[in-house]
Amino acid sequence: MASEVSGTSGTPVLRDSKRGGGAPRAPAHVISPCRTCCRRPSGTCPRWLPASGKLWGGRFVGTVDPIMEKFNSSITYDRHLWEVDVQGSKAYSRGLEKAGLLTKAEVDQIHHGLDKVAEEWAQDTFKLNPNDEDIHTANERRLKELIGETAGKLHTGRSRNDQVVTDLRLWMRQNCWTLSALLWGLIRTMVDRAEAERDILFPGYTHLQRAQPIRWSHWILSHAVALTRDSERLLEVQKRINVLPLGSGAIAGNPLGVDRELLRAELNFGAITLNSMDATSERDFVAEFLFWASLCMTHLSRMAEDLILYSTKEFSFVQLSDAYSTGSSLMPQKKNPDSLELIRSKAGRVFGRCAGLLMTLKGLPSTYNKDLQEDKEAVFEVSDTMSAVLQVATGIISTLQIHPENMARALSPDMLATDLAYYLVRKGMPFRQAHEASGKAVFMAETKGVALNQLSLQELQTISPLFSGDVSHVWDYGHSVEQYAALGGTARSSVDWQISQVRALLRAQQA
Amino acid sequence: MASEVSGTSGTPVLRDSKRGGGAPRAPAHVISPCRTCCRRPSGTCPRWLPASGKLWGGRFVGTVDPIMEKFNSSITYDRHLWEVDVQGSKAYSRGLEKAGLLTKAEVDQIHHGLDKVAEEWAQDTFKLNPNDEDIHTANERRLKELIGETAGKLHTGRSRNDQVVTDLRLWMRQNCWTLSALLWGLIRTMVDRAEAERDILFPGYTHLQRAQPIRWSHWILSHAVALTRDSERLLEVQKRINVLPLGSGAIAGNPLGVDRELLRAELNFGAITLNSMDATSERDFVAEFLFWASLCMTHLSRMAEDLILYSTKEFSFVQLSDAYSTGSSLMPQKKNPDSLELIRSKAGRVFGRCAGLLMTLKGLPSTYNKDLQEDKEAVFEVSDTMSAVLQVATGIISTLQIHPENMARALSPDMLATDLAYYLVRKGMPFRQAHEASGKAVFMAETKGVALNQLSLQELQTISPLFSGDVSHVWDYGHSVEQYAALGGTARSSVDWQISQVRALLRAQQA
Amino acid sequence: MASEVSGTSGTPVLRDSKRGGGAPRAPAHVISPCRTCCRRPSGTCPRWLPASGKLWGGRFVGTVDPIMEKFNSSITYDRHLWEVDVQGSKAYSRGLEKAGLLTKAEVDQIHHGLDKVAEEWAQDTFKLNPNDEDIHTANERRLKELIGETAGKLHTGRSRNDQVVTDLRLWMRQNCWTLSALLWGLIRTMVDRAEAERDILFPGYTHLQRAQPIRWSHWILSHAVALTRDSERLLEVQKRINVLPLGSGAIAGNPLGVDRELLRAELNFGAITLNSMDATSERDFVAEFLFWASLCMTHLSRMAEDLILYSTKEFSFVQLSDAYSTGSSLMPQKKNPDSLELIRSKAGRVFGRCAGLLMTLKGLPSTYNKDLQEDKEAVFEVSDTMSAVLQVATGIISTLQIHPENMARALSPDMLATDLAYYLVRKGMPFRQAHEASGKAVFMAETKGVALNQLSLQELQTISPLFSGDVSHVWDYGHSVEQYAALGGTARSSVDWQISQVRALLRAQQA
Amino acid sequence: MASEVSGTSGTPVLRDSKRGGGAPRAPAHVISPCRTCCRRPSGTCPRWLPASGKLWGGRFVGTVDPIMEKFNSSITYDRHLWEVDVQGSKAYSRGLEKAGLLTKAEVDQIHHGLDKVAEEWAQDTFKLNPNDEDIHTANERRLKELIGETAGKLHTGRSRNDQVVTDLRLWMRQNCWTLSALLWGLIRTMVDRAEAERDILFPGYTHLQRAQPIRWSHWILSHAVALTRDSERLLEVQKRINVLPLGSGAIAGNPLGVDRELLRAELNFGAITLNSMDATSERDFVAEFLFWASLCMTHLSRMAEDLILYSTKEFSFVQLSDAYSTGSSLMPQKKNPDSLELIRSKAGRVFGRCAGLLMTLKGLPSTYNKDLQEDKEAVFEVSDTMSAVLQVATGIISTLQIHPENMARALSPDMLATDLAYYLVRKGMPFRQAHEASGKAVFMAETKGVALNQLSLQELQTISPLFSGDVSHVWDYGHSVEQYAALGGTARSSVDWQISQVRALLRAQQA
Repeated sequence: MASEVSGTSGTPVLRDSKRGGGAPRAPAHVISPCRTCCRRPSGTCPRWLPASGKLWGGRFVGTVDPIMEKFNSSITYDRHLWEVDVQGSKAYSRGLEKAGLLTKAEVDQIHHGLDKVAEEWAQDTFKLNPNDEDIHTANERRLKELIGETAGKLHTGRSRNDQVVTDLRLWMRQNCWTLSALLWGLIRTMVDRAEAERDILFPGYTHLQRAQPIRWSHWILSHAVALTRDSERLLEVQKRINVLPLGSGAIAGNPLGVDRELLRAELNFGAITLNSMDATSERDFVAEFLFWASLCMTHLSRMAEDLILYSTKEFSFVQLSDAYSTGSSLMPQKKNPDSLELIRSKAGRVFGRCAGLLMTLKGLPSTYNKDLQEDKEAVFEVSDTMSAVLQVATGIISTLQIHPENMARALSPDMLATDLAYYLVRKGMPFRQAHEASGKAVFMAETKGVALNQLSLQELQTISPLFSGDVSHVWDYGHSVEQYAALGGTARSSVDWQISQVRALLRAQQA
Repeated sequence: MASEVSGTSGTPVLRDSKRGGGAPRAPAHVISPCRTCCRRPSGTCPRWLPASGKLWGGRFVGTVDPIMEKFNSSITYDRHLWEVDVQGSKAYSRGLEKAGLLTKAEVDQIHHGLDKVAEEWAQDTFKLNPNDEDIHTANERRLKELIGETAGKLHTGRSRNDQVVTDLRLWMRQNCWTLSALLWGLIRTMVDRAEAERDILFPGYTHLQRAQPIRWSHWILSHAVALTRDSERLLEVQKRINVLPLGSGAIAGNPLGVDRELLRAELNFGAITLNSMDATSERDFVAEFLFWASLCMTHLSRMAEDLILYSTKEFSFVQLSDAYSTGSSLMPQKKNPDSLELIRSKAGRVFGRCAGLLMTLKGLPSTYNKDLQEDKEAVFEVSDTMSAVLQVATGIISTLQIHPENMARALSPDMLATDLAYYLVRKGMPFRQAHEASGKAVFMAETKGVALNQLSLQELQTISPLFSGDVSHVWDYGHSVEQYAALGGTARSSVDWQISQVRALLRAQQA
Repeated sequence: MASEVSGTSGTPVLRDSKRGGGAPRAPAHVISPCRTCCRRPSGTCPRWLPASGKLWGGRFVGTVDPIMEKFNSSITYDRHLWEVDVQGSKAYSRGLEKAGLLTKAEVDQIHHGLDKVAEEWAQDTFKLNPNDEDIHTANERRLKELIGETAGKLHTGRSRNDQVVTDLRLWMRQNCWTLSALLWGLIRTMVDRAEAERDILFPGYTHLQRAQPIRWSHWILSHAVALTRDSERLLEVQKRINVLPLGSGAIAGNPLGVDRELLRAELNFGAITLNSMDATSERDFVAEFLFWASLCMTHLSRMAEDLILYSTKEFSFVQLSDAYSTGSSLMPQKKNPDSLELIRSKAGRVFGRCAGLLMTLKGLPSTYNKDLQEDKEAVFEVSDTMSAVLQVATGIISTLQIHPENMARALSPDMLATDLAYYLVRKGMPFRQAHEASGKAVFMAETKGVALNQLSLQELQTISPLFSGDVSHVWDYGHSVEQYAALGGTARSSVDWQISQVRALLRAQQA
Repeated sequence: MASEVSGTSGTPVLRDSKRGGGAPRAPAHVISPCRTCCRRPSGTCPRWLPASGKLWGGRFVGTVDPIMEKFNSSITYDRHLWEVDVQGSKAYSRGLEKAGLLTKAEVDQIHHGLDKVAEEWAQDTFKLNPNDEDIHTANERRLKELIGETAGKLHTGRSRNDQVVTDLRLWMRQNCWTLSALLWGLIRTMVDRAEAERDILFPGYTHLQRAQPIRWSHWILSHAVALTRDSERLLEVQKRINVLPLGSGAIAGNPLGVDRELLRAELNFGAITLNSMDATSERDFVAEFLFWASLCMTHLSRMAEDLILYSTKEFSFVQLSDAYSTGSSLMPQKKNPDSLELIRSKAGRVFGRCAGLLMTLKGLPSTYNKDLQEDKEAVFEVSDTMSAVLQVATGIISTLQIHPENMARALSPDMLATDLAYYLVRKGMPFRQAHEASGKAVFMAETKGVALNQLSLQELQTISPLFSGDVSHVWDYGHSVEQYAALGGTARSSVDWQISQVRALLRAQQA
């Protein structure tokens, strides 16, 4: 009658014990056949009752429902915190020593034991007990096995409420440095590439309609510049992650005079939290991190969209490296930009986690509630996603092949209509009239079925007498882009300025 | 220099090969120390570059980036589809047989091989290859090893585009039956309990302020009735899941005259999809399922909120079974309603998945794009969560202890102020005046510092001459609730009617 | 010192009374200059305190804060309910009559008065009082002015809790019929167009890469078929909207024996709600409607994305009518698909409302809480958006110009690589080998720099001896699409079948 | 046959012209009765076609659909930008002057005209034309009427793409200062109150179960401290809002050598944008602002939830001022905390806007697309909501009445169980044992049916011999809270420290 509990993603479902071990099964949700009346297959007997849901007055009064046990347990994911949990406990024992609650010898014993615990995790020899519901319980249980009763002193004045949030901050601090580095790596790759391919021109689009000629490097930089804001924001989030809650207890604070400044210094935090009730239950830094990731992914989804378009047959501006493409199981000629599509899609997943956390937080009574346990899986999943996405994006950019000849071919004289208007403006015509005159020229060319630059001077002069022979200079794409020399524009000098600005930003942030 | 790739939740991150096996490490994101300049720890050298992100012109042209390989792979989660994938392939081979593309003998050979594949999965002996990027590839690869070249005929006219969505529908169909049964089990438990505890009274609240006396069973039924809508909606979602896309190919349909009606019958679907482009790329049924779960969780979050409040010291109406409570690591006297808090919190997680998928779908070009790969993890996670939540909720309800004496004690005469107004209405006073008169009585009682029912008849008559001796009947809570005999109200007859209505609904849905 | 309150979107902000009337100002949030110390402009004096936020112990004890009054009021938007509120009140008075609480003469008086109220609204002569915080209060107040004390009997046994949700259901019922009709109009337009342009071929894309030749009508139908699911879902939502909550009172039900079946019949609802606590506080029908709209918008966003791409210079498959395009204030040659971009963008707005409501509902204590007031603005905004989007989409589809010659030109022989594989399959080669052989041909053609169909028979035969002269039939696009004759495919017969299926669906739904 | 267009929230719907003026009607979506066949009421004839959706080949080729015109127009809401639009244009004319494109006299003329335009808006005499689709068009059109052809020079080198985002940044900059001041006002009110009521004790809860005695001021500060992070974050958002995009043109930059540094100085921005493509299409600052508001609202929703609980009959810790409560239309005795419920509910609405914008941004091609038009309504609505919420919250806190006697009464000896454990810890027992011993005492008291502090010394000594006479000191709540003197705890010294820290933060931020 024994049953075990497992599931596709860590959440428990009841499973018939006769089924094989950890084998992935579909659906994992299979439930014992009906034993009351008909032995119909799982879930199809209308009279079937879940084993855990004994009718009112059932057998679970006083003992734990195994489904509940799994539902409540966080060890399947918070084990990722093993290293920072050990780190936090070592620091806390120093605090207890200074408060006179541990002797130097006891601290040494505890540190020695914790090092052994860490070693077991690192070497994958740590054995979990069925009762280890979370990483804190598991580590302290193991410590006690290793060093005996002294282990029981470690938790003095500490609660899992301040412990878990200290662990999570330590983990995220370390992780955010990694993500920062990956982000900087991506930006640097983009800037390097922009610099090397500075002089390639192609069409700039607005509303996906051809608008004006721009530099390819200007396009790269437009995305790199967006990412510098993500980088700046991440530093701000890191600043707020880097605040120590340890010493806040369950709710009221620490009653044993633990020196929180010492704890801060031991763990190298930038500051300490101000209020114990807030410290144990606020997850702003998690929400901020998830939103940071969501906005960053939005940027990358837009870059991915551009590159997916540019790699269509119709645009043919770029070609993805085989390393980042895949084929079709049906169509032999296909080469699909799967990497870019996955990046685009992950924006949804990451934002979903942000939405989920905020909804969980909404209207929650203050201080710690178990609802907050939702924070960690969100952080781990989003961290992994961001790490993969940033590395793949860097790989894509660094290996992308471009087709400058197709880019050049896509430039057309009608994209210079604005320049034609500016030509008239420079001759003294108010812009609104010039815009209208240029529009007339576009219409005339369309009507005659010729390109805009094939209108004769005579024809142009029927629109405005201000046209003269020098209008021919307008039809040079290279000349066009060089006009945009105001800061931020697509002229070469401005592109160079952008490159130096972004490089300076990166240097400043890494300082 | 070899490196391997792993992560906290299936998404890949680069990991130094010298590190131990599959051991969980924190952070899993550790990246090789800087080898170029300083060997600083991961992510802190500003000059460090991710291994996969070789500067523009790097080494990945033509071979696959290992990070990308993991990023692209879905086998870590779509393995849950092994059984339905085999099921779908068996049916498809029948289709090919009718179309004259397989002989009877070949079909037998394929079925035999597929049964062996299924057996390996069921017994957890299926060995994945590094190149098995998804369950379809894995199963076909293994089939070929088992039966040779005939396996290569199975995919004729089929694409992974129609295959994967067929698999997913089969999986969800089965899973939704299980969830339906769990939901029915919960509703039935609630109705049984409502019936048994029909006559217990307690305060009804609006705006969390005491409003009117109601039956405890009326409260239970208010949540059960909400869940019957979820049950009804799930049947509708199931109807739309139960439509066969197989035979749609990659985009254009099936060119080999496969009889889709035969496929439908083989797989017991209710209908076939109408358009191959839509069939391979629509994920309405996934979005609907995720929203169904979100709305159902919203209901359960509201019930959980009520029960959390009712189990506070201040309300003390109910007491959670120990099976669904936990203690505190710091405070010995605490017993916390963790099960209810987790249910409340999961509303956020589940809705986050719904939000994520819709965002992924927004603005996607039509037909299959790799973005759609996001559908499966959402479905698996939400299915597992719903399964656990429904079982835990059933367990909570079936084991909850109630305190009828505290419930009775919480009823107070001011909750009968509306009844006092009705008393006057029945004597002929327009309701608005009666409401005002009753308000005056409330104010008078407050001013005098007595309970509303302690005002003397004389005092009441200063407010209205319509008050007479029979006003004393108003102060009986049992009498009060029996007034609400209109259908849907809290009178006993109406509660009985509700019970019979809900039971009839369940019977109808299970038919 | 008097101040008034206004805001950009109905939410109040304090405004200095000396400022001009209702003139829109930026920002509307301007606050009186500091009067305590410096008269610095609004919001820049650090010692400045908002007028309503008197320091602890301020003046607002016992009187209403004007900001709060506006914050609480819903009349600015729930006035849209005037007609259904009158309708509901008329029905309710019939219920009171049957219950013996109103005489026939009183009912007539009330109906007469309510008709007058309705007339004032219809003729825009209804004058709101400052105290009319919602439409129910306003209508009853006016009724009393018109008919005197009898008006005070109308609310007997009714609460705004059951009244408002009855009104909202009536409004939405009517509105959903309109949206249904608009949706059907769009689908019909698409089907008509598909039928008329049945034989035009163009490239089908997966992953935005050219995949296989398909019919243009097949593309139109792929979107029309998606919309038929929206239409089906809307009918289901309408079914759940069409349930009467009136007679549920504030929480406990109706204590005066009102016949809810009579109310249902009067208001033509399909059923009555089962439980008064649930009836007054559930907003499933609102959440469902918002999600219905979100999913429908997701479909339209994908269709819009396709059409935006197809109307780029690079694709040039379609041209938007001038009626649905706009120009540029700067670039004379531009014609932008603004209508399509707006449709695409509205998917976000509509889903945002859905997300907002679910977050508001999460964890709410049961029965009515003021939080539920958020439902109406969401419904009104989303209804208006859907109405506009459906009409604009219909206009776009009915006026879109297509360029069949560009479509034809975009078909290329490599899109027939799958057909080449099928050619070999039909000659007996297993599909996997045929797929590989076709891949070799693609590679050979690429290497030689020729189109796939320009490989000679000799060249093909180096890949497989199964190639013979009849391979030339493969290179006919018309022949290619006709292969896909299985139901749901792109062959003409299948497109005709789809058209008849969709038409039958529409007829069935409209029945 | 003329028809006009209107809607409930600015989105257009077709309306029969015979209906009355601007009168609110329900539903506003009424559509002309069927004229083709049956004159059935709107939306019920299955053959009815929307006027704008003429069957394929309809009449709209070449002219604008009125529905589309409204759909496209933004003037109904972007008129809020009138003042900043004028401001931006004045600065831009200075830039054109320096670039030699305007003379000093022309600049004066333009400024004079723009001042007049502003005056008309301020005095609400500005008359909109039907063709004024946005505020930029409206202002320039009016300028031209006022000063003639010179007006046509103002837009030289400028695009609505850089103009609108400049306007929005100016508006938000001003608005964020106001919100900052309101937020500071709220925090200051809370800190003042915490200081004044520093010594009142009440129960601290975790998991909504009574945990430990804390100071009421500690609770207030827990929420104030959360708001200081919102304040800090808002400053960071403001920094990123305060960057000038003007001079970026439509996409490529400014071709006329406009000095963007001069523009920056004129408009007092902190920096200029780096890349013109990014500058015209990034809406990070909007997304950040919406998320800032969402997180701030999450905090306020949690505070509101606490206060709603504390003002229930069951808790009775606080009483809302009448200024922030409302009554019931049915129940005379009710006083509902509507203000708090509305605050709690707005968290959903605000986050919905954030979710909506991010979904709109996801996967958008780079540079300006009309989709971005969704930004403004979100900003205006959320700004208004935040302004109202912050003012109402300040009012609530400043007028809230507390019941210290009820708070004191709610403290119970079992809340000192942790202190009992600490007592033993101080006597040398390891914490884990002490926790267990205290647990035994709790159980013993429960079994005996007495309060924890009523156990005799003898009884306690059966649990541990370490108990002695001084255990009686444990049972003093005042003594209990004073233990928590570590920084951040609930001791008086720590509360004082918190107050000074928050005050210092406010001073620093306002500097």
